[in-house]
Amino acid sequence: MDKHIDLIKVIQNSFPRLSKGQKLIAEFIMHNYDRAAFMTAAVLGDAVGVSESTVVRFANTLGYNGYRELQKELQELVKNKLTTVQRISLSSNFTDYENALKQVLKKDMDNIEKTIHEIDYIAFQKAIEITLKANNVYVLGLRSSSFLAGYLGFYLNFLLNNVKVVTAGPSDVFEQLLKATDKDVVIGISYPRYSNRTLEALDYAKEKGCKIIGITDSLLSPAAQYADVTLIATSNMLSFVDSLVAPMSLINAFIIALGTERKEDTTSYFEDLEKIWKKHNVYSTKNSSINDINNF
Amino acid sequence: MDKHIDLIKVIQNSFPRLSKGQKLIAEFIMHNYDRAAFMTAAVLGDAVGVSESTVVRFANTLGYNGYRELQKELQELVKNKLTTVQRISLSSNFTDYENALKQVLKKDMDNIEKTIHEIDYIAFQKAIEITLKANNVYVLGLRSSSFLAGYLGFYLNFLLNNVKVVTAGPSDVFEQLLKATDKDVVIGISYPRYSNRTLEALDYAKEKGCKIIGITDSLLSPAAQYADVTLIATSNMLSFVDSLVAPMSLINAFIIALGTERKEDTTSYFEDLEKIWKKHNVYSTKNSSINDINNF
Amino acid sequence: MDKHIDLIKVIQNSFPRLSKGQKLIAEFIMHNYDRAAFMTAAVLGDAVGVSESTVVRFANTLGYNGYRELQKELQELVKNKLTTVQRISLSSNFTDYENALKQVLKKDMDNIEKTIHEIDYIAFQKAIEITLKANNVYVLGLRSSSFLAGYLGFYLNFLLNNVKVVTAGPSDVFEQLLKATDKDVVIGISYPRYSNRTLEALDYAKEKGCKIIGITDSLLSPAAQYADVTLIATSNMLSFVDSLVAPMSLINAFIIALGTERKEDTTSYFEDLEKIWKKHNVYSTKNSSINDINNF
Amino acid sequence: MDKHIDLIKVIQNSFPRLSKGQKLIAEFIMHNYDRAAFMTAAVLGDAVGVSESTVVRFANTLGYNGYRELQKELQELVKNKLTTVQRISLSSNFTDYENALKQVLKKDMDNIEKTIHEIDYIAFQKAIEITLKANNVYVLGLRSSSFLAGYLGFYLNFLLNNVKVVTAGPSDVFEQLLKATDKDVVIGISYPRYSNRTLEALDYAKEKGCKIIGITDSLLSPAAQYADVTLIATSNMLSFVDSLVAPMSLINAFIIALGTERKEDTTSYFEDLEKIWKKHNVYSTKNSSINDINNF
Repeated sequence: MDKHIDLIKVIQNSFPRLSKGQKLIAEFIMHNYDRAAFMTAAVLGDAVGVSESTVVRFANTLGYNGYRELQKELQELVKNKLTTVQRISLSSNFTDYENALKQVLKKDMDNIEKTIHEIDYIAFQKAIEITLKANNVYVLGLRSSSFLAGYLGFYLNFLLNNVKVVTAGPSDVFEQLLKATDKDVVIGISYPRYSNRTLEALDYAKEKGCKIIGITDSLLSPAAQYADVTLIATSNMLSFVDSLVAPMSLINAFIIALGTERKEDTTSYFEDLEKIWKKHNVYSTKNSSINDINNF
Repeated sequence: MDKHIDLIKVIQNSFPRLSKGQKLIAEFIMHNYDRAAFMTAAVLGDAVGVSESTVVRFANTLGYNGYRELQKELQELVKNKLTTVQRISLSSNFTDYENALKQVLKKDMDNIEKTIHEIDYIAFQKAIEITLKANNVYVLGLRSSSFLAGYLGFYLNFLLNNVKVVTAGPSDVFEQLLKATDKDVVIGISYPRYSNRTLEALDYAKEKGCKIIGITDSLLSPAAQYADVTLIATSNMLSFVDSLVAPMSLINAFIIALGTERKEDTTSYFEDLEKIWKKHNVYSTKNSSINDINNF
Repeated sequence: MDKHIDLIKVIQNSFPRLSKGQKLIAEFIMHNYDRAAFMTAAVLGDAVGVSESTVVRFANTLGYNGYRELQKELQELVKNKLTTVQRISLSSNFTDYENALKQVLKKDMDNIEKTIHEIDYIAFQKAIEITLKANNVYVLGLRSSSFLAGYLGFYLNFLLNNVKVVTAGPSDVFEQLLKATDKDVVIGISYPRYSNRTLEALDYAKEKGCKIIGITDSLLSPAAQYADVTLIATSNMLSFVDSLVAPMSLINAFIIALGTERKEDTTSYFEDLEKIWKKHNVYSTKNSSINDINNF
Repeated sequence: MDKHIDLIKVIQNSFPRLSKGQKLIAEFIMHNYDRAAFMTAAVLGDAVGVSESTVVRFANTLGYNGYRELQKELQELVKNKLTTVQRISLSSNFTDYENALKQVLKKDMDNIEKTIHEIDYIAFQKAIEITLKANNVYVLGLRSSSFLAGYLGFYLNFLLNNVKVVTAGPSDVFEQLLKATDKDVVIGISYPRYSNRTLEALDYAKEKGCKIIGITDSLLSPAAQYADVTLIATSNMLSFVDSLVAPMSLINAFIIALGTERKEDTTSYFEDLEKIWKKHNVYSTKNSSINDINNF
């Protein structure tokens, strides 16, 4: 595996002596090696805005006999997936906080933008229909995805009956899915590094005949293999953190679309809740001291 | 309060007969009424890219004797905060899923962009320093913010000793902060509609002399009043959902900046974890069936 | 309130010069002041195994003009409930661990024994019938009772569909009960010092027409006021700990009785689970190294 | 394995034609087959109150050539542990709720009594000393034991700094123990059917040099192998439920003994909390309507 890491390092080290066009390719690969690995030279050139021959020359500059050889190396890299330790060592030294912050937030904007471009609207609509028709809605997520599962469950609970968040707890995920049937839907959230237990739980639910909606990072993700409908939101590795910003934004859209379909019910439930929240003083009525700032 | 909701409705109804410049103002106000409420006509014009006099004419068109009167109405609207029921009734009818989805994701991109522009880098750096120096790091968040608190705690646990997520559970938040001292830091995450309990907990921590880092939506937020350092990430109300996408992106940057400071320790911890993860088969090694797609 | 605490202290201080029969009364009151407060002199004498006149003389010895005056003082004590701080100051100094341990465990045995004697079997049977008939079963418990609620929910999930544990979390208890109807049952677990939020949640569920089963320490408990069926299991204050041993034992009986009613389903579910547990290696097959001990 | 289950069934079927003394042996074995398996004929006779020769005749009556053969069968039974399905099939049909309830509660009283007789006071004292000296106290429990771990953590949090409950969640147990050192203690709660993950976590903690206190059901339990100090509290299988009543009672004693050692600190913390609880109205002041019952 070290050899492949070396590939990224080789690119980093060669960076100063690359041409302007080659630098664009280098940057693209360093940030998207998992996608670059499956692009032809022409497609990669297109993505970056350079010619196919620039891509080929780039491969030569790094010492490969053509793009195909470089691509193979990239595919090995993906196949073996980077471990977290390797990802830390790749992360630049963010000594300049301003740039670090900007870079991370920009990357998250890019992820949302990619998600907008790549989302399958038919799948999105189908996911909403399946969810509205289901007897029980199970929302499954483990490890860092458990926070997205909890967030989705938190809001779905206002809209639907019988929403159950399936995550690590005293009962294991199989026990939590024990009573699921083919009238139910499991919304499985799975991001790299894909948790094995999530995949096993999706397998178990599929055997029971549940409909499965996958929220994941690519149609090639192992979670997508179990899904009847797959919603793609781009994630990316930021050092040892897997950014879940774009998936959260997709989940926002999913909740709001469902809420719109259930507008009347939702309104009446929230009217009920507003009374309770007021009675029990759940939310602050304190405000941004308006008087103080009124005069500026 | 209905009167103020009416203001938004009035704007919506007048929309078709507004001039192009006025339409820009109308859209800005509908999506950012809480900020517009505190802008002068000149600032508002600037934000939208129209002249101050266009803003004044806009107010006239809606039936106000000048911008000041419209602004006052907006401030009332903010002061009384929209209840969730009102927010649902304001949400457009997203019958067209494609547009709905795009609109939500775009809005989240805007939130991150605003966050990039408005972030205070000195505060960001100070927040990192305080966190690195603290004996104990408490991460506090309730209701929908509890998922952000959990997410931040999940990653901080890899980097720091003595990280404690403070959220609703068998012990209340005060009990969880019982042993906190002036050597500790509390990172409080608070978004509208601000949970009262979060504010009370910050007040309690402040009394104990804890350093407080606020992650919130504005310097005017009630949480900012307790904070030694405030990190602003824009949120916005999407129907009944409070989008926490920009705060999550900010949290990503915060974690990565901390991880960079602790690079050696972090690397050695993750080396340890990789072995355990492998031994207990935590992560999938299955891959996006590379062979199948190799030939396209 | 200090005056009433003084009563217990007065009893403690007088202890050495009491007669043998009076010592029995003193001990009974110190450990059961909440029950003693509502017993006549005759009933108290009976409970302890002394005559009514011994009880009266006991009151005189402490300086009261008769038992009625002492009783009133006890009732005040109960009415004002001991705070946790007072309970700590009452706890004997357990410097001798052996005695401390024995005393606590004996007390817990006594609690179970009392529970056996005082349980209402008709109520127990009715609770099982209501639970089996319900569409949804909500198990409600906060603070230390949340562990009992979790434990009950853990096992009910094997037996019944639609079991939901209602406890402190991102969603408040009202939100978790939002969809409850008159076809549902809420099993509310409430022990002194009774959590206000539990009582409010029971009130809310009652308004919605839910059937309510109370698991609590006495028919006089505020939780019993909301219950259609009340199951009593004795608790007692051990210094600052509220022992929940007898309630847990009652819950065991409740689960087993339900499981017996659902024997076939349960068996088939567990056959399913055994396979999964085996496949995923959930339980140890390692055994108490039998060979080593075989020869002794 | 069926053969061994048959053993219990054989005993059940032979029951009516056994002598009075043999019936006592039969009952003991059915309820304590795991202990009986390792008793000699003489010790078993002693435990039940019959002669050694009665035990031998009992074995003959069941068709064995002596007690040793019966004992071997029992050991096989233990070695293969009953699965949950088998335990359900063994559970009597509790059609008579009154008896069922009494039987379960009595069994729990017996468990506590056994615990009183078998507890090692020196170990108990040592456990308290280790806990008081530790930098961090980790309380580990999974599956049904997670409720005991939570309960113990809930109270320890009032008494000690740096108490961490280690249980299933977004982070796995290894990650939660990542920073543990040889200055820390792990209190591991492990009951049959022993969770493998708990044993793996104890193994991991031991490697790190942590002190380990085991709370488990026997010195032969796999958890005891990792423990520096083992506290035994009897559990028993009630159909598919593992009664955790005696362990909870032991935990009560452990908490109270620790609280006594930390009396001053504890008192001052609770004085602090009482103010907060009052301010935020955590506990009910409503009382068992005293006036109504005053006159009986």
